[in-house]
Formats: sequence, structure tokens, C-alpha cells
Amino acid sequence: MLLAEIISVGTELLFGEIVDSNAAYLAQELAARGVALHRKTVLGDNLHRLQEGILTALGRADLVILGGGLGPTDDDLTREAIAAALNETPTEDPALVAWLQGLYTARGRTMPEINRKQAWLIPSAEALPNPVGTAPGWFVRTGGKLVVALPGPPREMRTMWREQVLPRLPQPDFALHATTIHTQGIGESNLAEVLGDLCRGANPSIGTYARQTGVDVRVAASAPTEREAAALAAPLLEQVRAKLSRWTWGENGDTLAAVTNRALGGRTLGVIEAGSAGTLCTLLAGQSAFLDAAVTTDHRRLITLGLTPVTLRDQGLVSVQAAQELAAGAREHLGADLGLAVVVGTEGEQAGQAHAALSGDGLNETVSVNWPGNPEQTRERAAVAALGLAYRAARVPVTA
Amino acid sequence: MLLAEIISVGTELLFGEIVDSNAAYLAQELAARGVALHRKTVLGDNLHRLQEGILTALGRADLVILGGGLGPTDDDLTREAIAAALNETPTEDPALVAWLQGLYTARGRTMPEINRKQAWLIPSAEALPNPVGTAPGWFVRTGGKLVVALPGPPREMRTMWREQVLPRLPQPDFALHATTIHTQGIGESNLAEVLGDLCRGANPSIGTYARQTGVDVRVAASAPTEREAAALAAPLLEQVRAKLSRWTWGENGDTLAAVTNRALGGRTLGVIEAGSAGTLCTLLAGQSAFLDAAVTTDHRRLITLGLTPVTLRDQGLVSVQAAQELAAGAREHLGADLGLAVVVGTEGEQAGQAHAALSGDGLNETVSVNWPGNPEQTRERAAVAALGLAYRAARVPVTA
Repeated sequence: MLLAEIISVGTELLFGEIVDSNAAYLAQELAARGVALHRKTVLGDNLHRLQEGILTALGRADLVILGGGLGPTDDDLTREAIAAALNETPTEDPALVAWLQGLYTARGRTMPEINRKQAWLIPSAEALPNPVGTAPGWFVRTGGKLVVALPGPPREMRTMWREQVLPRLPQPDFALHATTIHTQGIGESNLAEVLGDLCRGANPSIGTYARQTGVDVRVAASAPTEREAAALAAPLLEQVRAKLSRWTWGENGDTLAAVTNRALGGRTLGVIEAGSAGTLCTLLAGQSAFLDAAVTTDHRRLITLGLTPVTLRDQGLVSVQAAQELAAGAREHLGADLGLAVVVGTEGEQAGQAHAALSGDGLNETVSVNWPGNPEQTRERAAVAALGLAYRAARVPVTA
Repeated sequence: MLLAEIISVGTELLFGEIVDSNAAYLAQELAARGVALHRKTVLGDNLHRLQEGILTALGRADLVILGGGLGPTDDDLTREAIAAALNETPTEDPALVAWLQGLYTARGRTMPEINRKQAWLIPSAEALPNPVGTAPGWFVRTGGKLVVALPGPPREMRTMWREQVLPRLPQPDFALHATTIHTQGIGESNLAEVLGDLCRGANPSIGTYARQTGVDVRVAASAPTEREAAALAAPLLEQVRAKLSRWTWGENGDTLAAVTNRALGGRTLGVIEAGSAGTLCTLLAGQSAFLDAAVTTDHRRLITLGLTPVTLRDQGLVSVQAAQELAAGAREHLGADLGLAVVVGTEGEQAGQAHAALSGDGLNETVSVNWPGNPEQTRERAAVAALGLAYRAARVPVTA
């Protein structure tokens, strides 16, 4: 099995000003390819530490992937560090220089001299074309091992990974088959009780992960081929599916919004968000059922949308009653089949409290959450709870 | 100067299923404290690799911070790894056992046996109380160096860091003073030209970082005290401020939404989002100027909000004219002083195209963006562009 390490390069990553989403993407890609990732490291723009980091990683792993540090400026040191680690000397590649100059000419500009180092290669490196930027990557074969250097901007990195690196990697001698089951409404420890001894195996194995949308359960198996891995996982997967069906809302790439959309079966959804500031709309982005939303905490506006002044006075905006009135209002005033409303407190005593309600089509359901956090977390939890409510209500056959 | 390394623990981080936001938080905290972070590493739940990782980090750094792996289950191995690295034997601490049992008793439950290991200590470790979870942290003093183990859940980690770790760290013998200037409307390379030789110094220094909201410029200096560092940075900071004033919208913790809110000076903002799915609302969350928003791509609904059928037919929804009509509609139909509308294409030929318009109070401004990406990136760029438009328009004294 191929062993990999990722090294993300950039002092800005060590200041915490940027979250390293590239490494997460590469980690997923490696897992899907059956490559074992044992370590991710972040290093600053320091030649000595980069050189040492590359050498150490090559001592442990078969494949070392570097992200970032391929720009034209003095603090872009990935090329220099690989060359130093392998004791090779970079030279300018005429074809790469011509390609770079062509990029600038096409924009009516002259290539700055500093960009010349983006045309460097070392003897053991093959250049990886970059169709969406100026930094070619490197694919280095050295002593039976591989070093891959990718640009930092996510779009450039992902395109190069997919189009250039994947086809050059050795075929895996080992395949991983994993299925992720998405649940909601059961905690991680209760879920472990429900699964019991099923969790004990190593291959196939079960892992549980707490997410905003509930607990994810991952059933995985490895074998020489994808087909054998799938066959190995299948009996356990069926048992897990059966035990968790009550709480399961989807598998693998399903999103709660997409399964809700399917469950709505053509019915439209009108949304009122009071305090969650468009977070629910963002979750519903692109779903055909999502018709229209009003996002406001303005009391006068909310009253025109169905909130009664009596409820506002006696129970306040962050109340079950207010959510129910606004859900009815969403259906009526936004002209949708179903109305979904969420009211969220992010300040003072009501910080962390939220209520959601669904109205219409014989349904009248509510859900409440109370879990203090920062306002953004509260909004996110409230929006996810509202969406979960819509999903559960929508998938139940209407009897009324 | 104190040298630090961060080790994030968890196999799930190596699958890329979670982005490591803890490490970014700690990196920011360390920078603010004047601690130099040279390396961040992610390791899986593997005793041998964790032990080796801790030892290696202790060979390079004064302070090693571990995040995660303090739970009660078999794959939570941070305590075991620290004990093994330092060649010490964990024992159960009676006070911690009593505290843990109290937590369960308060919830009417009995503490599971597996939780006992959360009461472990080694001779060189002091327990760090966890007021929001069941995993105490460790603060380890060993051979003049420090090892800190923090729980993985962000809320627990941050509380423990702030309340328990910071007061125990040695006073910095060195202080960093940094000011971040937020700009918009100028690219990173043009900005480097404007600043010219100012960028060359090492202390004080200038760094530039491309962000969704524009380019950030960080002016930093280090000195024995905060006051001396501030004095050292001051002359450069004033020069940079003067050179960038045309493009500057804020500094440090300012957000584009907050400075827009201030610039609006009490005027209210009505918002229509057609295609950006609440992303602009989320940026405006909590701002007093933000009155009400309609979020929809439904043509009939948009027509009731001010879009003319002629524009829809001849120019389409993703057009400057549509944005202008909807901005006027946002003001009129949502009862706000100013109307802000954004129309976004996320599919087909118009993917990546967006237009925003502001209307009212003598203002009538538009901005367009065209930068293909995934739908989420397109929505984010469009919402930021709309907010930037509102800021620039609102801060200009009204003359009409």
C-alpha cells in the first residue's frame, strides 16, 4: 500500500489567517485512491525547514505532496527546497519560459523577470501543466519514490491534481471501499450502543463522526480490488443500515437539502428566517423546491408576514408560537405549498435558543434547539435543525 | 522567543472529512502572544507515530500543543502517547475520578468504566479543568519544556486555552505588534508596486494576503515590549496607510459589513438576492442597518419585487438592468432607505457572472463580477462585491 505525506507550505498558514482546505481536499482524494496518509505538516516559507521536512518525509513515505510555494516571489521556496533536498540544480526550461511568456503576451504584457523561476526544472522533475495559472507543478521521480509539487490556489491545485497527478500515480495494489451513512437524532454514544459488537472489527471497520447534520457512520473495507473490498464490506453494511434505518437520512454524497428536496416531491417551500440571517437559504441553495424566503428581524415586517403582535408581546420572537405563526405566514405570504420558519436568539438570555416550525399540507411540526455558542454556530445549528425538521416531516406520507 | 509546534490528533483529520479549525485558532493565538509557530502536524490515532511525533517536536520546540485524542475510547491515545514519549506511567487521579463521577451523577447516570482514563495523570502533568466537557487537559512541564494537551471539540479547546493555558505560559520576552489594513479594488501585484521599497524591511515588515474581501496588508514589528514594537511599526504604518487610503476600507477586526453599517449612518438597507441564496444576508448578520431581505430565483416573485418582464425576456435575470430594477424594488417593496440587489448565475453559460446594484438616496451604482468557480465561490464573490458596492456608495457624502 502506498504511504503518503502532505506538506502545506506558507507562513500565512502558520499565522492561522487561512484554513488549509487544500490539505483536506488532498486527504479525501488519497483516501478514495486507497493511499494511506500518515501525516500532514504545515511549514513556513523557510528554505532550511522545507528541505529538512521533505527529506524526513521521503524517509517515511512513498509519495510526498507539497502544496504552495510555487509563486514567483522570493518567499516562494518549494522548488528550491526540493532541489536542495535531492541535491540537484535547477535550470530554466526553454519550453516553460516560452509558455509563460505566451501567457503574458496574450494579456498584452511583458513577463516580469521574477517569473522566470516558475520555468525551473531539475533533472528528476517533470513539469505539470497549469491551465488556470502561471505556476507549473513538478512531478519528481527519485529513488523509487515520488515528490509532487502543486500550486497553492485551490482551483489550480485541484485541476492539476485531477488532470496531471492522478494519471501519473501507480495503480493501487489495494482498494478501499467506504460507505458513509448520515444519521440525525441519535448521539454518538447511543449509536455505539445500538451497533454494539459490530464496531469491533478491523476490516471491515466502522467509524463514527459527529457532524452539524448529525452523526455520520462510515463502514469501510480494504482488499486487493475495489470489487473484493465492496464484497467484504457488504454484510456489515447491510446490518448497519438495518440497525440505523430509523435515524438515517442519506448516504455518501447526499446532502440534507437534496434529500429534503426529493422528499418534498415537487411541493414548494417558502422560508422565513428571523435571526439566522440567510443560513437556511444557503443550505437550500439550488434546490428546486426552494421558492422564496424572507430574511429579517424587523418586528413590523415580521408582523406583515404573519407574526401576531400578541405573540410578540407575550412570548417574544424566539418562541415556538412565533415560529408556528411565521411558518403559516411563509406558506401564505410567499405563495408556497409548505412554510418553514426559524426564529433564532443570538444575544442576551436567549443566545443559543432557536425554534423552527413547518406548516401546510396537513403537517404542523416544530423543533427547538438550545445550545449556546457563538452567533454563527447558533445560526448554523438552527438552520440545520429546521432543515432536518422539513426532511422528517416531508418524507412521512400525508394521511390528514 | 518561545518556539512552538502544534500536533492535531485524529485519523478523521487524515481522511479530510474535517477541516482542522483548531490549529488555525491556536496559530492566531500564538502569533498574538508573540510565540513563533514553526510547524503544524496532523497525526492519526496511532500510538507509535504519536509518541515519535511528540519526541521529535520536543527536540525542536519549547512548547508542543496537542489537540484531540482525550476522549474515553480506545482510539483516544494522546495521554498514552505523552506518557510513553516521556517514559512516565499514568495513574488514576482520585480528585479527577470524583469530578468525572459528579458530572454523570448530576445527569442521573453512572460513569461508564471507559471514562476512567480521562482521570489519568502522569507525575509531570497538571490537570487542566474542562468546564464544558468531560476531558480534562494536561499541562506538562518536562526538562524546561512544555507539553499541552487540549480536547478536540472547538468550544472545549478554546475555553481551556483561554482560561487555563494562557495564564500558565511564561511571559513573552518579546512582543509582536501587527496591524492589518483591509483594502479592496487593487490587486496584490499592483499593491506591491504602490508600496515599492517599503516592502523590503524585515522589522518592521509588510505582508500581503489575498482575501475574498480584497487584499489585506499586514504591518508588523517585534521588540522586547508591546510598546516598543508599536513604536517601531508606527512610521511604516503611517506611510502604508497614506499610500493605501484610496483602497482601504478598514483595519484589524473590522468587517466589511460593520464598516458598511457605520457608513450607512442610520439609513436602512433592503436586500434582494436572486441566485446568491442568502450569502449576502449572512454577511450582513447582526448589522442594525439590515432591515429585510427577499431571497428567491422565482421569476413570478421577482416580478412582484420590481423586475420588469421586458428586462427578464430581453436581458435575462443575470443582467445589470435586472439588478438595477431589483435594487429599486428592494427599497420600495421592503420599505428601506436604500435597496441593494444581487443577481447571480451559477449554471450554464452565465456561471460565474453576477451583477449588484444599489438604489436610493441619490445613489445609483452597479458592479459586475465574472469569475467562474463552483457555485458556492460564485455566490460568495457576488455577495462580497455587493457589500463592497454598498460600502463605497454609502461612505460618499450625498450631494444630490
